[in-house]
Order: sequence, then C-alpha cells, then structure tokens
Amino acid sequence: MTFRHVAMFRFTDDATEQQRVALARGIDGMPEATGTIEAARYRHGFDAGVNPASWDYVVVADFASADDYLAYRDHPAHQALIRDLVQPVVADRASVQYEVPG
Amino acid sequence: MTFRHVAMFRFTDDATEQQRVALARGIDGMPEATGTIEAARYRHGFDAGVNPASWDYVVVADFASADDYLAYRDHPAHQALIRDLVQPVVADRASVQYEVPG
Repeated sequence: MTFRHVAMFRFTDDATEQQRVALARGIDGMPEATGTIEAARYRHGFDAGVNPASWDYVVVADFASADDYLAYRDHPAHQALIRDLVQPVVADRASVQYEVPG
Repeated sequence: MTFRHVAMFRFTDDATEQQRVALARGIDGMPEATGTIEAARYRHGFDAGVNPASWDYVVVADFASADDYLAYRDHPAHQALIRDLVQPVVADRASVQYEVPG
C-alpha cells in the first residue's frame, strides 16, 4: 500500500515567473530536505496548458506510509517552504490524501 | 514520459452516501469503458481524512500520451459520467495535467 498525497495550487494573478520558478525549485528539494520520500516517488510540475480551466501546479507524492506523509507535512523544511514560497504566490490550494495499491 | 491527469473534487453538503459510492463505481469503470488507459495506472479514491481541510475525492491517471488523455476526456462514456454522476454532487473541481518521467 502507498499513501499518496496530492496537492494542487492556483497562483495569484501577480505571481511572477521568478516566484513560480523559485517555488518549483523549492518543491524539488523537499525529498532531500525532509528525508521522508524517494525523489522518484515525488512528482510535481506546472500544468501543461491543455485545458484553460486547469489549475497551475500539482504535487503527487507516494509515501511508504501515512506516518511518512505526516513527517513530511510537519517537517520544518516543508513548513518553511509553505511560508516563504507557497503562501506568497498561491491563491487557492486543494489537497487529498488516499491509499493506493502497490 | 507519462502524461498525468489529476482531478480533485469537493462534494456538495447534500451529496448522499449512495451518490458518492455511485460516483466511485462510475470512475472505477472508466479504464474499461473508454479503452484509453490501463486500470493499474488509474488510481482514484476518497480522501483518507487526515487533514480536515482536504477535498473529498481524487483521480490520478497516468496516460501513455497527451492524445490518450484527450481521448479519455472526450470519450462519450466519460462525458456521461461527468453529466450523470459528477456534476450532481460536486461543488468544486480542480485539475492539472502534466508530464512526468517514466
């Protein structure tokens, strides 16, 4: 069983390209900074632009357990990311956590 | 490269248990009904309840290509699902499509 965390963001209208790139880089560093998940099981990125109504960014993170997800969620490096790089540029956030086979 | 489609729903307050289960079953039938994706690469489910602010349902679908995703999106069986089982019970919907390695 995998405990999957999915988070989706919509940026504010005035979020700059520099801020978006900084956010993507910061997210990319989370597996190493938190030590809670393998990088290969932590897949994130900007929306591909296929549907106009789509949101802007998504993270899909496959943790070995719910406890590993909670360690990630509450890790100081993740909390700093949210405070410094997510909250300043994100207008809407949606997330779901669920168990998937495998 | 995998073309990943992520969709997230928040139910209306008056969505019944029966409607939620019908939606989950309908979603579960999409790989076979549309013929666009392997069932093992189409993972969906109810939120686990770890975070009070989380949304209610998520679908993560790993298509072999963007074209396969578009065939799924526009397939009559999927359109019927949206009309008959999603729209009556979903207050908010968010989605992102993105390319992931592997």
